[in-house]
Amino acid sequence: MDAHTIDTADSPPSPPEEETPWLTAREQRMWRAHLEVAKLLEYQLSRELQPHNLAINDYEILVVLSEAPDHRMRMTDLATATLQSKSRLSHQITRMENAGLVLRQECPGDRRGLYAHLTEQGWETMQQVAPDHVRSVRAHFIDRFTPEQLDAMYAALAPVAEHLRGLRGRS
Amino acid sequence: MDAHTIDTADSPPSPPEEETPWLTAREQRMWRAHLEVAKLLEYQLSRELQPHNLAINDYEILVVLSEAPDHRMRMTDLATATLQSKSRLSHQITRMENAGLVLRQECPGDRRGLYAHLTEQGWETMQQVAPDHVRSVRAHFIDRFTPEQLDAMYAALAPVAEHLRGLRGRS
Repeated sequence: MDAHTIDTADSPPSPPEEETPWLTAREQRMWRAHLEVAKLLEYQLSRELQPHNLAINDYEILVVLSEAPDHRMRMTDLATATLQSKSRLSHQITRMENAGLVLRQECPGDRRGLYAHLTEQGWETMQQVAPDHVRSVRAHFIDRFTPEQLDAMYAALAPVAEHLRGLRGRS
Repeated sequence: MDAHTIDTADSPPSPPEEETPWLTAREQRMWRAHLEVAKLLEYQLSRELQPHNLAINDYEILVVLSEAPDHRMRMTDLATATLQSKSRLSHQITRMENAGLVLRQECPGDRRGLYAHLTEQGWETMQQVAPDHVRSVRAHFIDRFTPEQLDAMYAALAPVAEHLRGLRGRS
C-alpha cells in the first residue's frame, strides 16, 4: 500500500459502478416543486412582513420567545431552536435589541447563561403581526391543500424532519 | 363617499369579525414540518457541498447556466431564474468569477446585455460535484418517500408553486 492508496482511502473517489442514479423525471419534478415552494414562500412571507418592519427571522424569534417560559431563552438554546449559528443569532439579537423587541440579560447565579428576553414591546408587536402573518400563511400555503393533502404531507415530511434533526444534533 | 372611505378601499383594515382563524393543530403540525424540512435540508445540503468549496447558491447557478444555451444567461434572466435580487446575484457572481467558475461578458450588439458565462472550470466543477449532490438529495429527501408520496406531494405543491411564481412575477 503506497501513500497514494492511503490518501484515497481517506477521501474515496466514487467508483462509477456504485454511482447514485440521477433523479428520474418523477423525482425531479417533485424536487424542483419543493425547492421552488420553499424559496418563493419565504420570499412572499418576508414581503408581507415588511410593512411591520420585521424580517422573517425576526418574526420567528418573537414566536419562539413568546412560547418560552417567562418569555426568555438562553442564547444557545435559541440558536438551536431557530437552527442558526450562535454568531448569526447574536447579530440578529443586536438588531432586535436596537428595535426594542428583545433584551439580552445575564442570569444571576448562572454565569454561563446569557438570555434573550422578549420585551413588552416585542410581545405587543407579535400580537399585532400574528393575524397578518397567519393570513399570509393561509393564503399562500395552508388553504391551498385539502385536509387529506395536509395529512398526507405531514405523514411524509415528519420522518424526514426527524432524520434531519438527528443529523443536525450530531454536527 | 368621503376621503376616509377611499383610503380604506385601497388598504382595507381587517375588522375583527372577519379575522383569519389561527391554524388548527392539524394545519400547524404540517406547517412546522414543512418549515423544518426546508430549513434543515438546506443546511444539510450546504454542509455536504462544503468539501467542494461551493455554497448551495453557487451550485444552483452552475446548474442553471449548464442547462442554458451556450452555457450563458443574461444577468437579469439569471436573477429571475434563481429568484434573487440583481444586487445579490451580482455579489455572488463576483465571488464565483474570482473562483474561476463563471465569467461576466458584455454581448456585442446588445448594449443592455451583461451575461454570466459558465467557464470550462465551472462546467468541470459541476460534473464533479453533481454525483455527490444527487447522493445527498436522495439520502436526505427523495429516497425517503414512496413513489405514491412523491406523486401526491408533487400534485399538491405544483399549483402552489405556480401561484407563488405568479405573485413574484407581478412584484
